[in-house]
Amino acid sequence: MTATPVLYTCARSRGLRATWAAEEAGVNIDLKVLPFPPRYLVPEYKEINPLGTIPMLIDGEARMTESCAIAHYLASKDGPSPLVVAPGEPDYAAYCDFTYHADATITFPQTVFMRFVLFEKDKGLEEAGHAYAKWFWKRLVKLEQRLETREFLCADRFTVADICCGYALVLSENVGLDEGVPDSLKVYRERLKGRDAFKRAVAREEAGLKALEEAGR
Amino acid sequence: MTATPVLYTCARSRGLRATWAAEEAGVNIDLKVLPFPPRYLVPEYKEINPLGTIPMLIDGEARMTESCAIAHYLASKDGPSPLVVAPGEPDYAAYCDFTYHADATITFPQTVFMRFVLFEKDKGLEEAGHAYAKWFWKRLVKLEQRLETREFLCADRFTVADICCGYALVLSENVGLDEGVPDSLKVYRERLKGRDAFKRAVAREEAGLKALEEAGR
Repeated sequence: MTATPVLYTCARSRGLRATWAAEEAGVNIDLKVLPFPPRYLVPEYKEINPLGTIPMLIDGEARMTESCAIAHYLASKDGPSPLVVAPGEPDYAAYCDFTYHADATITFPQTVFMRFVLFEKDKGLEEAGHAYAKWFWKRLVKLEQRLETREFLCADRFTVADICCGYALVLSENVGLDEGVPDSLKVYRERLKGRDAFKRAVAREEAGLKALEEAGR
Repeated sequence: MTATPVLYTCARSRGLRATWAAEEAGVNIDLKVLPFPPRYLVPEYKEINPLGTIPMLIDGEARMTESCAIAHYLASKDGPSPLVVAPGEPDYAAYCDFTYHADATITFPQTVFMRFVLFEKDKGLEEAGHAYAKWFWKRLVKLEQRLETREFLCADRFTVADICCGYALVLSENVGLDEGVPDSLKVYRERLKGRDAFKRAVAREEAGLKALEEAGR
């Protein structure tokens, strides 16, 4: 008897990687959608997660705060899964590389853009945000070249690497950074967004967001 | 018969995670130290790595560019190792989380600081760099709390999670961001820097750098 993992997140945030991975892997999670940003709107959340960030997964004693790690963990914790590439499989190196690349190289720069260009526009540091928008676009060459001859990033099948990197492309669409995204990656993104598990994950998060709004939060 | 993996890096960069992991794991690598920044000083490098970034690991058909992924890969590719925490072990979740946390959350913000405060000072965007220095210091609470009762991050032993997060603390010392680093994390860093494999990794990189300097590059 193990308790259901609890995922704290905000709708449309990078926590979508975790919600999506749970749907793909068929892992039952208790999804708790918080108002954004939780560190101001849900002060008691800091007692659960001192970072104040989302997502956070609680699974027994475990506390996880990295979206790509949570996605990989949910898909691999109960044993081998086609969503994960195992050591010994030909694309194991690529799988490791792209799951880390997703947040460290192609999501973080977008958050710098969001901070200085969208959220803190009054600070006069928009140039710093735009510098990281360009930085992000240049780094997409890795994904672009990899997908020139492939439908998915690794092992000729959909894996958590696609969830991790795919979300970075979902984010660029949501925050107005699509201008420098190659068409081939937009096609790839549509392929991912067409998956039933992706749609279910989005629907779950949107339902949570709607419930918050109805409760006036 | 498999070829020796080739690691392209620059001395003292986050590629140290890969050099260090190779030493800890006893994996033979062909270390190629490049002058920094390679994208300007070694234009032909872009033919090998279109991103122009370091580190890059070439292992057979595999091409990897994420330092934490390379460290984890080198330690896990040949089968189970005490340097890695496997699914089913109690700290598997923490191991996943900290190896991703290391670059996405506590290294990237330091690179934003380095860009605007150290390398591109003339752009007048230092405030953006300092904002990310503060952001970095606040995020250290996760590492700090985890190490309150532990010598190493996971599974009561030294693992790749320590290599990945430890390098973020080595970087903060090197770039002048130690002011906001808690003393307990400085003690942890010294523990890591005292390891023979760490010292061998640094010595290998420094020897490569010296050879470059002697060749006038």
